[in-house]
Amino acid sequence: MSSPGLEPRKYVVVGGVAGGMSAATRLRRLDETAAISVLERSGYVSFANCGLPYHVGGVIEDRASLLLQTPASLGARFGLDVRVHTEAVAIDRAARTVTTRHTESGVSESIPYDALILAPGARPVRPPIPGIERALSLRDIEDTDAMVAAVGRAGGTHAVVIGGGFIGLEVAENLLHRGLVVAVIEATDQVMAPLDPEMVEPVHVALRDAGVDLRLGRSVVAIGAGDVTLDDGTTVPADVVVAAIGVRPDTRLAELAGLSIGPRGGILVNDQLLTSDPAIYAVGDAVEKIDALSGEKTLVPLANTANLQGRRVADIITGQARSDRPVLGTAIVGVLGLQIAATGWSEKRLRAAGRPYRALHSHPASHAGYYPGAAGIALKLLVDPATDAILGAQGVGSDGVDKRIDIIATAITGGLTASDLADLELAYAPQFGSAKDPVNMLGHMADNLRTGVSRTIQWHEVADAQQSGTIVVDVRTLAEFARGAIPGAVHIPVDDLRSRLAEVPAGPLVVTCAVGLRGHVAARILTQQGFPDVRNLDGGYTTWRAGTASL
Amino acid sequence: MSSPGLEPRKYVVVGGVAGGMSAATRLRRLDETAAISVLERSGYVSFANCGLPYHVGGVIEDRASLLLQTPASLGARFGLDVRVHTEAVAIDRAARTVTTRHTESGVSESIPYDALILAPGARPVRPPIPGIERALSLRDIEDTDAMVAAVGRAGGTHAVVIGGGFIGLEVAENLLHRGLVVAVIEATDQVMAPLDPEMVEPVHVALRDAGVDLRLGRSVVAIGAGDVTLDDGTTVPADVVVAAIGVRPDTRLAELAGLSIGPRGGILVNDQLLTSDPAIYAVGDAVEKIDALSGEKTLVPLANTANLQGRRVADIITGQARSDRPVLGTAIVGVLGLQIAATGWSEKRLRAAGRPYRALHSHPASHAGYYPGAAGIALKLLVDPATDAILGAQGVGSDGVDKRIDIIATAITGGLTASDLADLELAYAPQFGSAKDPVNMLGHMADNLRTGVSRTIQWHEVADAQQSGTIVVDVRTLAEFARGAIPGAVHIPVDDLRSRLAEVPAGPLVVTCAVGLRGHVAARILTQQGFPDVRNLDGGYTTWRAGTASL
Repeated sequence: MSSPGLEPRKYVVVGGVAGGMSAATRLRRLDETAAISVLERSGYVSFANCGLPYHVGGVIEDRASLLLQTPASLGARFGLDVRVHTEAVAIDRAARTVTTRHTESGVSESIPYDALILAPGARPVRPPIPGIERALSLRDIEDTDAMVAAVGRAGGTHAVVIGGGFIGLEVAENLLHRGLVVAVIEATDQVMAPLDPEMVEPVHVALRDAGVDLRLGRSVVAIGAGDVTLDDGTTVPADVVVAAIGVRPDTRLAELAGLSIGPRGGILVNDQLLTSDPAIYAVGDAVEKIDALSGEKTLVPLANTANLQGRRVADIITGQARSDRPVLGTAIVGVLGLQIAATGWSEKRLRAAGRPYRALHSHPASHAGYYPGAAGIALKLLVDPATDAILGAQGVGSDGVDKRIDIIATAITGGLTASDLADLELAYAPQFGSAKDPVNMLGHMADNLRTGVSRTIQWHEVADAQQSGTIVVDVRTLAEFARGAIPGAVHIPVDDLRSRLAEVPAGPLVVTCAVGLRGHVAARILTQQGFPDVRNLDGGYTTWRAGTASL
Repeated sequence: MSSPGLEPRKYVVVGGVAGGMSAATRLRRLDETAAISVLERSGYVSFANCGLPYHVGGVIEDRASLLLQTPASLGARFGLDVRVHTEAVAIDRAARTVTTRHTESGVSESIPYDALILAPGARPVRPPIPGIERALSLRDIEDTDAMVAAVGRAGGTHAVVIGGGFIGLEVAENLLHRGLVVAVIEATDQVMAPLDPEMVEPVHVALRDAGVDLRLGRSVVAIGAGDVTLDDGTTVPADVVVAAIGVRPDTRLAELAGLSIGPRGGILVNDQLLTSDPAIYAVGDAVEKIDALSGEKTLVPLANTANLQGRRVADIITGQARSDRPVLGTAIVGVLGLQIAATGWSEKRLRAAGRPYRALHSHPASHAGYYPGAAGIALKLLVDPATDAILGAQGVGSDGVDKRIDIIATAITGGLTASDLADLELAYAPQFGSAKDPVNMLGHMADNLRTGVSRTIQWHEVADAQQSGTIVVDVRTLAEFARGAIPGAVHIPVDDLRSRLAEVPAGPLVVTCAVGLRGHVAARILTQQGFPDVRNLDGGYTTWRAGTASL
């Protein structure tokens, strides 16, 4: 804070959206006398990044509602000197000045700072393929205006979205809203990389059911005037092409100024959000963060983290004792009525890192099944087998997924174990949950694994187990079994099991039901009746079917 | 677990709903060879208690959907000997037998046990007023059938619900659904006792807007043939009367057997859920629990806790290392489109206990305001000023309240401080939250109080402060101010404050806006400009208006 008689402090913030504007407004609340300038390359500040796809789709009809603040309103409320169309083109670190260039007039200026905060965000990845200049991106209001105009021109014809991540799926859905025929081209075998393949299989189904031409494991090799060409030689009609392949930290200014860049390609900062220059801080999508599970550097371009870091850096600059915190990367997207959310690490990431884990799948109802409107959801929990620590969680379904992932993210932050989830007291009435909430049930499942009451097998391990002589016993009803089952499965309904023990093969067994609940009962019966090697199929036939369909 | 060659264990469970049935089924999964009997006085087990009001209202149309299991299905799946219409009338503790009486045939039987689990639940409080025998209650299927029949007879006429708690409000709403004219008579000054009065004022408004004749601070002194008489001498027409005053632990059998009863009137159990008899356990609404904040005995008749204790006691009985855990009492009710939820302690309870606290009120949107469908919600957080520990939280609103209360309940269990809520990484997309989620914002507010960046005043302290010479400065727009303001308030919009400092009185100041955000900005401006005593009105005019209306 300023002291009487001292010169007011001079703060310059590069970037006027989430992290930058959080920093600038918090700085003002903590330092009334400082001179605070905010430099924004685009024509807008404090706009609703995460709303942009929905304006393209017409869900958010009024463009003005995306503009949460203006330079004038920020001037009046916070005494900020907000300059739009103003690019920071160079930093003189010795002189502590930033050189700006007005993007329309070309006029240049030098602004002195006592502390400089870089919040330039991230830039869309644009692969070097022929015709890439025809592809639209979606990061700011100008991009949005361009996409709205392109869709207006193309009205009712064909769009190709390159990339099946958060933004790609949001854009695809919104282009469907606008009546376009939409294809999504995704280079990997699944959309939504933070989740595992068996979890996103329902998303693949929903996209295809909505008429999306979903091409998995395919890349675009050329963008033509009216189509794109894929790496298998096929062409897909495309009046509009959107590149939503991902984003990379915008490090141009930082690199030009000789600031250190980290191993993941983001601006390197310490736990005080300080770059390699003691007067230059950086926050948001442009910087590398610390992964909460591995302690390693990571890139997590999410609005919540950017806002939080912006506020935090203002606290640090004005002398509060703060440290940046590691990140979990909790994220969600809503697509075609599905909520798709994750926190922490996925199974494939754990496996790739060689880190031991237990996986748990469940398929609860979003609220009590006897109350109207309950939706089936799929949850997955990843657990450290040595410590019972929660390593990650995923959820997909039409209702209540956001809540469960937020509860689990909070539990991770609070250091609760997977088994502790069983004991959480969550608000229960039949509209909102169950007396045993889906999160509690994950805790019970984890506890059963921890104590050895349960042994489970994963969907992707069944075929190999069968090859080695394991018999699958399906304990659902005959009607369920007849509608589809794991090849080779023996059928004995759980309620008949005690009276038909003689029919159960002696060898290694996998029991399975629809979602794993009856299978657990059956596995307990068989184990206690003396069968020596019984495992329950985690997530049951539902997870197995989704997983094998995703292959 | 059973060992080969030993006699199978004999378990008897008294009570066949939440806690009792959770215990019985878990016992079976852990002990395949035990003889497990479940004695249930009513004609039904494993029914959906929390769904009963909604069947009365026709929201849950099919009565059968309330019956989650039957004695036959539980026999087939879990090998349980489930006896309905079977009351446990006595325990011979020396002989370890329970005497049962069939409620229809009157036939008596003696059942031996190695371990007895009491899960008799709670009974509705029935005050000793003339005509109380005419009042219906709602605890089981028989009660529900009786209420459905009574409403059918009374079709379209008048109902009186005595008690404005969870069940009373659910019943009131469902009787409205059925077309009855409904009065709610509540002896205290507010409905929903676990919340503070300013938080439930919107519920009072919603009830009255829906046509409910809400009588606060009134008791029923007599129930007549077609009306009830209140303590102010007025009568209210009543073809149907429902007593929903609360519940008391059902300790009849335990008392008869000489088991210890605790200070709050529930069955006394230790952390192994063991009563004063080493072979008798007890769980659920009938037992006293330990309050998570005070460590004292408490009564928390909630389904989630009952289910959890039922499972836990089975683990304990079969030799797993478990301890019962203290309870927060997280609860929610949905009424007339509002979600009303709480966890931990309320302000009035903290005040009555003489425990220091800070209160924080916020009025965020359920999700990003720019995305369609955002609903205003009210949140309240109670914080220990010495440790920053979270003591309680409350929420009221039409969407997203359940999620925020669950997150905070999880944070309490994980030992996170109020300021830690700022750093939680919650799943954000504009349909589900905000980049700064309402829970994060509570954390920022708590942190500002903790660090002294904010000083606040509560709605109920304003009048006294004004009496002592404090001036209220309202920093909203003129249009907002003109629609209603705190009497005596001076009006200077926040955006004009810096240019009109000369008009601001020098004395102690309270600044206020709609919800507290602009007030915070104004308080920071004034404090840093040298005004020595500035406080922000917590929750702004919205909380003040609700609070003063509740008086």
